[in-house]
Amino acid sequence: MVNTNQFIPGLEGVIASETKISFLDTVNSEIVIKGYDLLALSKTKGYLDIVHLLLEGTIPNEAEKQHLEETLKQEYDVPDEIIQVLSLLPKTAHPMDALRTGVSFLASFDTELLNREHSTNLKRAYQLLGKIPNIVANSYHILHSEEPVQPLQDLSYSANFLYMITGKKPTELEEKIFDRSLVLYSEHELPNSTFTARVIASTLSDLYGALTGAVASLKGHLHGGANEAVMEMLQDAQTVEGFKHLLHDKLSKKEKIMGFGHRVYMKKMDPRAAMMKEALKELSAVNGDDLLLQMCEAGEQIMREEKGLFPNLDYYAAPVYWKLGIPIPLYTPIFFSSRTVGLCAHVMEQHENNRIFRPRVLYTGARNLRVED
Amino acid sequence: MVNTNQFIPGLEGVIASETKISFLDTVNSEIVIKGYDLLALSKTKGYLDIVHLLLEGTIPNEAEKQHLEETLKQEYDVPDEIIQVLSLLPKTAHPMDALRTGVSFLASFDTELLNREHSTNLKRAYQLLGKIPNIVANSYHILHSEEPVQPLQDLSYSANFLYMITGKKPTELEEKIFDRSLVLYSEHELPNSTFTARVIASTLSDLYGALTGAVASLKGHLHGGANEAVMEMLQDAQTVEGFKHLLHDKLSKKEKIMGFGHRVYMKKMDPRAAMMKEALKELSAVNGDDLLLQMCEAGEQIMREEKGLFPNLDYYAAPVYWKLGIPIPLYTPIFFSSRTVGLCAHVMEQHENNRIFRPRVLYTGARNLRVED
Ligand SMILES: CC(C)(COP(=O)(O)OP(=O)(O)OC[C@H]1O[C@@H](n2cnc3c(N)ncnc32)[C@H](O)[C@@H]1OP(=O)(O)O)[C@@H](O)C(=O)NCCC(=O)NCCS
Ligand SMILES: CC(C)(COP(=O)(O)OP(=O)(O)OC[C@H]1O[C@@H](n2cnc3c(N)ncnc32)[C@H](O)[C@@H]1OP(=O)(O)O)[C@@H](O)C(=O)NCCC(=O)NCCS
Repeated sequence: MVNTNQFIPGLEGVIASETKISFLDTVNSEIVIKGYDLLALSKTKGYLDIVHLLLEGTIPNEAEKQHLEETLKQEYDVPDEIIQVLSLLPKTAHPMDALRTGVSFLASFDTELLNREHSTNLKRAYQLLGKIPNIVANSYHILHSEEPVQPLQDLSYSANFLYMITGKKPTELEEKIFDRSLVLYSEHELPNSTFTARVIASTLSDLYGALTGAVASLKGHLHGGANEAVMEMLQDAQTVEGFKHLLHDKLSKKEKIMGFGHRVYMKKMDPRAAMMKEALKELSAVNGDDLLLQMCEAGEQIMREEKGLFPNLDYYAAPVYWKLGIPIPLYTPIFFSSRTVGLCAHVMEQHENNRIFRPRVLYTGARNLRVED
Repeated sequence: MVNTNQFIPGLEGVIASETKISFLDTVNSEIVIKGYDLLALSKTKGYLDIVHLLLEGTIPNEAEKQHLEETLKQEYDVPDEIIQVLSLLPKTAHPMDALRTGVSFLASFDTELLNREHSTNLKRAYQLLGKIPNIVANSYHILHSEEPVQPLQDLSYSANFLYMITGKKPTELEEKIFDRSLVLYSEHELPNSTFTARVIASTLSDLYGALTGAVASLKGHLHGGANEAVMEMLQDAQTVEGFKHLLHDKLSKKEKIMGFGHRVYMKKMDPRAAMMKEALKELSAVNGDDLLLQMCEAGEQIMREEKGLFPNLDYYAAPVYWKLGIPIPLYTPIFFSSRTVGLCAHVMEQHENNRIFRPRVLYTGARNLRVED
């Protein structure tokens, strides 16, 4: 039992929301999503199954899944003005900043922005799931002075997303693994970005605003931004020895190593990381190049031995995305795209049973100062 | 003592941050800002004094205040691209949506976005304080197909802000009262928008992202959006009798009345509201038109008698802004402009002594579901 008259840094262990969406059950090692274990689901189900589960409450049958895919495909197009806004960004902008601006801008095209009914929010969720991959992929192209890429309707949702990023139709294995990464990123209880979205939604502000705040949150290096930071380390290091050296160096300077640690899993391995490690093995086997895998395993060992810390999902998502040919600055935007569904579910739940978040502070500053006059 | 193993809706009474910035001392009826009482300060000090207090830690002397004003004046201009982005918005967009997009877009023009040092964040805070009034005023003009207004360097900070909105140089009284409203809105401990900004900043995301999230939060009707909702009610009602009728009607339908109630003040009057009521009296005396004052007083009485509820700042800020000739959709953006200083102070404090916000949930959904295959 925690006494809340005391200050609890980072609200560790504090229960901030009641939810029927998801729960990290560390006792049974389950990521409970609407009653199912996400880890078990990820073995046989794909991203659209999870989208249906989170937004409609059930695992879809074939017909429902096809209908869902059709719905999303009809939402791929974004207003021309979004492309123009992205084109106005300085070319040095990060795609997460482009995405934050893009999601915010999109709000103004919603003609019933003040309507917060479930059915309207649900329609918006599908629109966002259709459009965000387009914004993500094209922000990168536009920032690199490339032509925007048009979505391909004959590819699956995940294959099209990957195609729009790389410009190449993915192989079956690439499609499967990218889809699995979206499954694993889709929803994860109350991390900072989801909490941000619920806090914003609790003023009865709109879904877009809540998601805009979530992009801002996810960008931080202690959160979604970690996957990009991991890949940058791996790139800098180049070899297994180089990576060991880099980690030892950072540890000796008491720096935090991105991709390790987790508030809820604490000193255990993030179970999603183990699944992405399997994906990295599969991709490494294709061309027999397992350098990144070896580097990551060496890093894992050092962190376990020296700090008792274990990898989180971002640690293994990074080399997987690298092997899929995805540019590093899109790793966090992809995380956001995938999490959009979870965020929408949380905002809808917040709007339907709301109380505004308004906590207090522990004031440790000056007191009783007065101006003379 | 509150048991946090229990779910506390809206984190009521939970201490979420340690701060040296501000504290609502309901026992002594003080809004403590860096040791001073904001209510006392507002009688003799202006907005720039509060800005200096919040960002530099002291009430400025004349020279310091002039220097601050010069610093802000040098930051009035915004990149042309911002004006172009605002021009791309559908004309039906709300200025709060324009502002959210504008603040987000501005981030990409910061060439050292990853630098979170105090001195850099401080420089950004001054830049934002210079530019946000420009974005606020011109978003309105552009959405109304009017030419953007250029800032006037020979006016004071607050007079220029009001001039940019109305297109008219304010009288001395108008300037004083507008400035006082900015003082009262400047900082107020940990309301939803400030909490949002700190939650986002705790991932080590940047100041702009944190502020973008705060705009999204403030837009909600339960928070900053209330001042616009109040004025819309007053406009609909037209007369004292009409307003009484409107309130009784809403109360009988169990609707919440915007402009009343406050998580921290609970069943007392928001002391800032009392000061804005005085300002409304002063403005009403100028041309002897006290209709809005009478309507507000009648509403106050009904809410006190029927619900035991008292006005908050937004209730009296609304008619004051109306009398200053400010278009209703700018009321909440002005609230945000004024609060920018408080938000920057909180983000800087969060960055300097950080732990990521990551609370837990009370899961009340289904358990132990399995897919067949
Ligand atoms: C995820 C994370 C933010 C959780 O934060 P938290 O619950 O507040 O945990 P703390 O930062 O208080 O860490 C507890 C201890 O472990 C250490 N630690 C945690 N993660 C660490 C890491 N990645 N590298 C080195 N040390 C780490 C802390 O320094 C701290 O040590 P101390 O008690 O000696 O000061 C944190 O582990 C982290 O910053 N990881 C790196 C960023 C990352 O990968 N984020 C993606 C998460 S999915
Ligand atoms: C400010 C506010 C969000 C605080 O919320 P809170 O601390 O969660 O308080 P609650 O909403 O739980 O209100 C407590 C009780 O007072 C009632 N109440 C609070 N504010 C009310 C209002 N403005 N009109 C009518 N009833 C109100 C609630 O209905 C509730 O009654 P109940 O216990 O019978 O259900 C709330 O008072 C409100 O919505 N006010 C109107 C919006 C507004 O003016 N916001 C600007 C704030 S500066």
